[in-house]
Amino acid sequence: MERTASHAIDRLEALCREKQTRVCVGLDPRLAELPEELVQRYVRRWGRTREAAAAAFREFGRRVLEAVAPYAAAVKLQSAFYEEYGPAGIAALEETIRLARAAGLWVILDAKRGDIGSTAEAYSRAYLGEPELWGKERSAPAADALTVHPYLGEEGLLPFVETCRCRGRAVFVLVRTSNPGADRLQNLPVRWPEAASGGQNPGAGREARLYQVVAEWVAELGRGGRGRAGFTDVGAVVAGTAPQEAAHLRALLPETFFLVPGYGAQGAGPAEVKAAFAPGGTGAVVNSSRGLIFAYRREPYRELYRGEEFEPAVAEAARQMRDELNAALKG
Amino acid sequence: MERTASHAIDRLEALCREKQTRVCVGLDPRLAELPEELVQRYVRRWGRTREAAAAAFREFGRRVLEAVAPYAAAVKLQSAFYEEYGPAGIAALEETIRLARAAGLWVILDAKRGDIGSTAEAYSRAYLGEPELWGKERSAPAADALTVHPYLGEEGLLPFVETCRCRGRAVFVLVRTSNPGADRLQNLPVRWPEAASGGQNPGAGREARLYQVVAEWVAELGRGGRGRAGFTDVGAVVAGTAPQEAAHLRALLPETFFLVPGYGAQGAGPAEVKAAFAPGGTGAVVNSSRGLIFAYRREPYRELYRGEEFEPAVAEAARQMRDELNAALKG
Repeated sequence: MERTASHAIDRLEALCREKQTRVCVGLDPRLAELPEELVQRYVRRWGRTREAAAAAFREFGRRVLEAVAPYAAAVKLQSAFYEEYGPAGIAALEETIRLARAAGLWVILDAKRGDIGSTAEAYSRAYLGEPELWGKERSAPAADALTVHPYLGEEGLLPFVETCRCRGRAVFVLVRTSNPGADRLQNLPVRWPEAASGGQNPGAGREARLYQVVAEWVAELGRGGRGRAGFTDVGAVVAGTAPQEAAHLRALLPETFFLVPGYGAQGAGPAEVKAAFAPGGTGAVVNSSRGLIFAYRREPYRELYRGEEFEPAVAEAARQMRDELNAALKG
Repeated sequence: MERTASHAIDRLEALCREKQTRVCVGLDPRLAELPEELVQRYVRRWGRTREAAAAAFREFGRRVLEAVAPYAAAVKLQSAFYEEYGPAGIAALEETIRLARAAGLWVILDAKRGDIGSTAEAYSRAYLGEPELWGKERSAPAADALTVHPYLGEEGLLPFVETCRCRGRAVFVLVRTSNPGADRLQNLPVRWPEAASGGQNPGAGREARLYQVVAEWVAELGRGGRGRAGFTDVGAVVAGTAPQEAAHLRALLPETFFLVPGYGAQGAGPAEVKAAFAPGGTGAVVNSSRGLIFAYRREPYRELYRGEEFEPAVAEAARQMRDELNAALKG
């Protein structure tokens, strides 16, 4: 209950301060990259079934969470990989959310949902609240935050924002993503709408990029949802791979918390992601997925991988990322 | 196996021709609108649990599908309402997909997914293909089509398109949606990119609307995926509530199949949706959700609802919608 009352981003900023870290661990359990022995153990027991895959995800997730907990503030669970295995996969996702919260991590469900009206309400109940009429017996743990698509307009975001306000949750709106083809739509030149800015936006009527219009809208949705740490409960996904755009967005959105993907495997380093932070090194967490959770498969951490023990490599990769980020933010 | 080889939109066009209908039934099982007695029967058995909700969805879905099968070509399942009830909800969704296919309906999963690279691949395996490494023992039925978001660019759509080509499936890209706030982003004035059209687009360099740029891209993605009926496997969601825009999109996309939401409860009638069809009344299906599946709660079908028997009202609403559409398309 006390979680409901508190502000989601305040909780995250407090965790970052306490643990002195800006690391978000991306838990994307690609079956083909999991330790072979771990997967085979469940296959021997249950055959090549969805239940075996889900059981492997469960164990892998638990062990990754234990390894990274000292070095990370948040964990971002990639819903797609769990959904692939049906009801068993979803049960594994729910258990992993529960374990992550128990480990003191702030939980982002990266499900990139986007729908309107009563459907958006159902999604926000599913992942940030509790199911309709079944409130008292809810058996699934809610995430602290959900990623969402902006394309559907007002009716696509307002139901999520309402849940955030009432229940102390957050959303991250996709603004500028880290994939090379992102600029196809996100960087389209658009005429900045006058209406959206209420006449106060100095850019109104001039040409902008689509992602800047979405950013302006994120700021608007965040009004009324600012916590004590100075950030609102409507965050933005801002790629670390486009530092100039990140810097521009940081200036445009001083009160918005950024979820920054693209670190490590996708190409951004500490110098690139620094632009996404607010003064004092606050207002953002940086996500790395493969670079951390599959560190045991790659140099320089591979040598720490012995037998079935992948945890030392994963922990060391998370520790190094924490230190790299902290050094860059201090410098 | 023969489904894999055939073209998804060819299958749908064949069904529409055989059954002489352009109706798509939207199965959005909002728990609060289900027949009270039906829900209570499961609550008495299992309490106010997610399993009880899922069991109610299962029975409701089965009975709706039986009632509408003679009058509809397709069914669109709204994933959010099932997801709300966790693993049990997903199991109910899978069973309902199975029943819909057995009833001879073409199945659209309205999950509005949108992610990149290996995550998009996982989503397309989850809903249009089969899970990785578990192919031979797949226990979930794939849908014929999935709805997807365009905001992430190339890497967000290509993995889905590849699955469509290889496995005889389709996607519907969100182009112009039926909610009042849709124009916030979708109707933004943008400068039409020169590159996207390969120099052949007469609009290049001129001002357009964002949804028109997305539409152009849908046409581009569809190249190489055209079936015998003349339509590609990359479809578009085009609202029936914006007839002028639908007419414009139809002219711009002669080979694109349209999924047309917004009929009935959302305000579009037969005259409005006609603009979305290709010559000969082909190239589109029209979706109605509440107006059909909850017809027993509303005039003029309420009087057909007796005891627990909601099927006559649902069947009659579907029959009337079929006839209205056919009359408009002939006229």
